[in-house]
Amino acid sequence: MKPIHVGIMGVGTVGGGTATVLKRNAEEISRRAGRTIALKMAANLDVAKARELVGDDVEVVSDARLVATHPDIDIVVELIGGTGIAKDLVLTAIDNGKHVVTANKKLLAEHGNEIFARASAKGVIVAFEAAVAGGIPIIKALREGLTANHIEWIAGIINGTSNFILTEMREKGLAFADVLRQAQELGYAEADPTFDIEGHDAGHKLTIMSAIAFGIPMQFDKCYLEGISRLTSEDIRYAEELGYRVKLLGITRRAANGIELRVHPTLIPESRLIANVNGVMNAVLAKGDAVGPTLYYGAGAGSLPTASAVVADIVDVTRLATADPEHRVPHLAFQPECIADLPILPIEEIETSYYLRVPVVDRPGVLADITRILADEQISIEALIQKGSDQGSHTEIVLLTHRVQEKHANSAIRRIEALDSVKGRIVRIRMEALNG
Amino acid sequence: MKPIHVGIMGVGTVGGGTATVLKRNAEEISRRAGRTIALKMAANLDVAKARELVGDDVEVVSDARLVATHPDIDIVVELIGGTGIAKDLVLTAIDNGKHVVTANKKLLAEHGNEIFARASAKGVIVAFEAAVAGGIPIIKALREGLTANHIEWIAGIINGTSNFILTEMREKGLAFADVLRQAQELGYAEADPTFDIEGHDAGHKLTIMSAIAFGIPMQFDKCYLEGISRLTSEDIRYAEELGYRVKLLGITRRAANGIELRVHPTLIPESRLIANVNGVMNAVLAKGDAVGPTLYYGAGAGSLPTASAVVADIVDVTRLATADPEHRVPHLAFQPECIADLPILPIEEIETSYYLRVPVVDRPGVLADITRILADEQISIEALIQKGSDQGSHTEIVLLTHRVQEKHANSAIRRIEALDSVKGRIVRIRMEALNG
Repeated sequence: MKPIHVGIMGVGTVGGGTATVLKRNAEEISRRAGRTIALKMAANLDVAKARELVGDDVEVVSDARLVATHPDIDIVVELIGGTGIAKDLVLTAIDNGKHVVTANKKLLAEHGNEIFARASAKGVIVAFEAAVAGGIPIIKALREGLTANHIEWIAGIINGTSNFILTEMREKGLAFADVLRQAQELGYAEADPTFDIEGHDAGHKLTIMSAIAFGIPMQFDKCYLEGISRLTSEDIRYAEELGYRVKLLGITRRAANGIELRVHPTLIPESRLIANVNGVMNAVLAKGDAVGPTLYYGAGAGSLPTASAVVADIVDVTRLATADPEHRVPHLAFQPECIADLPILPIEEIETSYYLRVPVVDRPGVLADITRILADEQISIEALIQKGSDQGSHTEIVLLTHRVQEKHANSAIRRIEALDSVKGRIVRIRMEALNG
Repeated sequence: MKPIHVGIMGVGTVGGGTATVLKRNAEEISRRAGRTIALKMAANLDVAKARELVGDDVEVVSDARLVATHPDIDIVVELIGGTGIAKDLVLTAIDNGKHVVTANKKLLAEHGNEIFARASAKGVIVAFEAAVAGGIPIIKALREGLTANHIEWIAGIINGTSNFILTEMREKGLAFADVLRQAQELGYAEADPTFDIEGHDAGHKLTIMSAIAFGIPMQFDKCYLEGISRLTSEDIRYAEELGYRVKLLGITRRAANGIELRVHPTLIPESRLIANVNGVMNAVLAKGDAVGPTLYYGAGAGSLPTASAVVADIVDVTRLATADPEHRVPHLAFQPECIADLPILPIEEIETSYYLRVPVVDRPGVLADITRILADEQISIEALIQKGSDQGSHTEIVLLTHRVQEKHANSAIRRIEALDSVKGRIVRIRMEALNG
């Protein structure tokens, strides 16, 4: 069969990795795909750098538009990132009848609906395995592997930087700022780490998984985001004493009246496999009604792992390109005319359990006041420990609640903070059992 | 689009689950597949029982041949099991131009080459996600998700019964026989448990994974099988003291001169995620050159989890059935003409590390004798502990070796057992770091 011609737009870490994998494993990939996958063109503003990364047998240009429109290119790989020029170029490629493979989570989470609609109208495929959890084939698992299931919820460690920081904070008892500095030195965190540590990156990936799990449009603007920058090693230690680990989770759940879509630090029982995913690794736990809980673990970023997903998509597109569009796997797992308009719930409407750390004056009646307020708000307590403090008369009450709607938790927290005996803000971390 | 008509041969636990999933999630499945998947026929010797499990709107017959040959059936699901009548019926269905979905690991591991050749000749698909690790979409992950990779090795906990027994032995310090009896009472183990506890079941699943990972024919007859029935809770405890868990692993590895294909109890460092997979759950760890290690975890058996995989295959076949055969995913991941004839290595040729427990008389020079023999055989020691014993003058030396070819380990074991100071057989358990 005739070779498939691939063009890459944006040659950085992942683009270089893609060129490496396509070259190094060329023989094995063509034995699987049944035809040669040839990298023909690469576009990069810095042509010399791209040349170095992709080798001499690839045409290197500085204008990515030449790739998006070139008549000999079958599949365009977008690795520029962001939503500006990348969006224009992806739409240009689609308009030129090219299939597109992209690792751009931000582009899909924020503009996926428009892009998929355009692709469907043109009869081309936009594949995006590399956009979520790097090398882990999670898009394929959710969209095809679990296709028989009514998916109930997904919880994922989908930002390696945050997971590295939380792992170091726990294992070494270090403060957030110290570990962040170390992560920056190691190249695990950007100079401006906001995108990773405040949950934006995880939110983009979660938005994509939520859409394909539940058959809903991409709605990143409704995703609740709370990062890890305010976590203290003290809270991580208390959680551990209670048998929990703290992870930055992206959680999406089908509730009675809508879809939960939220990224925040979360206590997880330490016996759960996902609680033991450490360092920069990623893992996604998905619960289907038939299969039960399934977990997918691997490298969530990096040159070659992400390239693994890019090349898997290229082979998939190669296979499906000749099938009639009705028989392809739909972009969002469900047929375009079957996408449901389920509402994303505001964070006040979600239901979860809570870890609360309350700074109090150590005097009789404090605990009675706090527990009465919780009872008023219909919040039951699962565990409670009282911690001493260096400041003599001050102490801290750490408690875990059972499941309750967030607005009731908020109301209880406000009322407890208003007590005379409570000295300062309550630390609140959400908690999930992840047991079905 | 016109509905896809499915017929099931053999209605037991999984057949009933498949009927349940197809009915319960019918709306969601058709929103994904783009067409209705309709269970039209079911064959079972006990017609009344099948009727109960599949409901009134399905034609139930006692002769499975009627399903395999019925002109209105598009996809035949084989859930009879074994290699006798199931093989005849699968070949009959293929000869009648039907696509086949099967959960029959034994059939594929022992006769897969013949079946796939016949299917290719007839232009039909034989799908088998349910044959390995139940509901975990591991076939799809290995065959499509990791398609860019040169796969280096796979290690899997792929027999739930054995994993349940090992988990109970470790957690409760019980003897193998006691836990087996308990597992039989709970329905986790058969009355004749040989197939599960002696590694046959795991060997079938491993053979299938090895074939699709490395592009080799199915060669179950060359798979090394060693079960868990001779493991003692003492060895599990010693392993734990040294920082290891004991799991029944199926391991297949691409070595310099061939493929390792072996099922046996294995020490794994407790920090590995797979070491913490407990109870009846399954997990497969696969290492690709680009993606690094990836792990897939979930229920490895049971009615609905296995049905989840069967139905995923039905939807896949529905999609690929209309594509031309050249563009389908090849049965063994590689195009039929590209299957390589790599030799399966005899167990003496594999390379691994070892846990050795040596019963000795407690007198000077014993350790010197043992360590001299190990040095002679070029075996280095990673850790060593000496354990007391109730019998006064007797004691035990427990040691962990570095990697060495099995024939050298065997030779050392024979020589050590011949020492005057060694009183009895050496317990030997293989050990894998699983770190890359």
